[in-house]
Amino acid sequence: MIRIAIDAMGGDFGPEPIIEGVVQALEEKKFMPILVGDKEEILSLLPQYYIDKVEIIEAGDVIDMSDQATNALKRKDSSIYKAVELVRDKEADAVLSAGHSGATMTLATLRIGRLPHISKPALATLMPSLGKNKTLVLDVGAVTDCTPQNLYEFGAMGEAYVEKILKLKNPRVGLLSNGSEDSKGNALTKEAFILLKNLRGFVGNVEGKDIFNGKVDVVVCDGFTGNIMLKASEGVVTTVFELMKQYIRKSLPAKIGALMMRKKVFANMKRQVDKDEYGGAPLLGVDGCAIVSHGASNAKAIKNAIFQAILFVQSGVNTQIEELLSEEK
Amino acid sequence: MIRIAIDAMGGDFGPEPIIEGVVQALEEKKFMPILVGDKEEILSLLPQYYIDKVEIIEAGDVIDMSDQATNALKRKDSSIYKAVELVRDKEADAVLSAGHSGATMTLATLRIGRLPHISKPALATLMPSLGKNKTLVLDVGAVTDCTPQNLYEFGAMGEAYVEKILKLKNPRVGLLSNGSEDSKGNALTKEAFILLKNLRGFVGNVEGKDIFNGKVDVVVCDGFTGNIMLKASEGVVTTVFELMKQYIRKSLPAKIGALMMRKKVFANMKRQVDKDEYGGAPLLGVDGCAIVSHGASNAKAIKNAIFQAILFVQSGVNTQIEELLSEEK
Repeated sequence: MIRIAIDAMGGDFGPEPIIEGVVQALEEKKFMPILVGDKEEILSLLPQYYIDKVEIIEAGDVIDMSDQATNALKRKDSSIYKAVELVRDKEADAVLSAGHSGATMTLATLRIGRLPHISKPALATLMPSLGKNKTLVLDVGAVTDCTPQNLYEFGAMGEAYVEKILKLKNPRVGLLSNGSEDSKGNALTKEAFILLKNLRGFVGNVEGKDIFNGKVDVVVCDGFTGNIMLKASEGVVTTVFELMKQYIRKSLPAKIGALMMRKKVFANMKRQVDKDEYGGAPLLGVDGCAIVSHGASNAKAIKNAIFQAILFVQSGVNTQIEELLSEEK
Repeated sequence: MIRIAIDAMGGDFGPEPIIEGVVQALEEKKFMPILVGDKEEILSLLPQYYIDKVEIIEAGDVIDMSDQATNALKRKDSSIYKAVELVRDKEADAVLSAGHSGATMTLATLRIGRLPHISKPALATLMPSLGKNKTLVLDVGAVTDCTPQNLYEFGAMGEAYVEKILKLKNPRVGLLSNGSEDSKGNALTKEAFILLKNLRGFVGNVEGKDIFNGKVDVVVCDGFTGNIMLKASEGVVTTVFELMKQYIRKSLPAKIGALMMRKKVFANMKRQVDKDEYGGAPLLGVDGCAIVSHGASNAKAIKNAIFQAILFVQSGVNTQIEELLSEEK
């Protein structure tokens, strides 16, 4: 049975939505949750029926959002430290946290370790697209200063991930640049372009808009650019809907019109951009599985993050990453 | 009278919308357009009444979108080369082109030259925002590999521009980064952060979403990141409205609802993201005024770009840039 170490204390809303998400996941799938945190609090939130369906590991400390990621290595009694340690010690197959994402990434990278061919792990996220599938973008925040080799590895990891997890055949990988011509790019991407040509699915440079139009399945970028692109895109969506609301409020016909569009248009669109449908971003390149959930995760997000972890472990994506990187150069 | 050199041949639709835009501008404001291009073609498009209200300079060559920007310097009979040359020779106060933007930027930078304190000019664009004013973002594509000094100068130029052109008092300048804490950033922005502290209006790091929420008036970034952010944001808007259309088409109540929202909501929103309202992006830092319009500019965009050029020349923004950069360090 797949064992998933869950940081029960991380996240903006404390342990409640996390325990609730674990219970929801157990209702649908067989796996062994290992809940790490304040045992008493966890037991108080866990319905009687589930008590023998989970393991609980006591942790007396929690790293919160205001702490420095670099201190995470010293906080050995924290819930995230102990959860990561379970994967390191092969007592769990995956670790999942909605807590401090920098701490999770640092600990997963340094305590679990990297895959043999990976110099830096990358945070990968699925973006909504007009194409058949969502687009996987990496890195969106793990590595702010990248080398060309980092970007090349990100390409291979992205290719392996969409092949194994999204079951796409011959995925297309693009390099995010300031134009689609081969000659475009900054010093970093121009060098990375040459390395990425070794990748089966590499189709060349893509522009910001191509993340959303289905032109490629994987978009590679450094973590600084990816993070800015991700947050700008979220900001645009928020702004568009906020503006729409402001205009709707000012007009009665528009108010009625909006009501008529609510179910078939707005509800569907909301689902399409709903982060909770995935529940978290995998940190690709660690020698195991680490899922970084957002701090505001609700029970549904945690449930889906658990399902994502189960799929990750079953899919053999790490083996595929290693195969791609050992064969292609 | 302000003299504006206009590349009459650049742009995706040839001279027609450009001449039409010049005519529309002349109906509203006094200025002297200097139309550069195929004299015969220009005359055939220009209404009789306006013939003595413009100057026409013959140019036998046009740089098109497939040409390399670097060749622009050799194409001395091209409409954009000759239009830029008019500013260099002080025969025009500003130059405007909807043609090859790389060529326009290269020629404006090298032939007109830079302001004394500017190492690299930057392309600046206004982004829609939930705040009172739009947000000026620079650079969005002129300099792909920036130094910290470049970013510092961009900050000063942005501050001067919104003070003089948008008439904002005490504008707030943010540095685009992967988090708002002072410690965030890549190697480039961490160094730029220290320099930018010398700028009166500098408020620290901002995130991608802050471009759209009115937190700051000016956002500074390198041209690679800015270009990706800009195109991703445009892609998100396209995707949101395309998805909405797809869902509307599938439901009769939604279709009726959308009709009821058309005038008061969708038309207003369209206006808010309409690029033609500004008509072009100024290339800040050249010793003169150069406005880069998008290739698909219609007459309205050209008209507004001309008005922007007039305002630029009248406002003394270049003097303000030089003052800021000579006093602040």
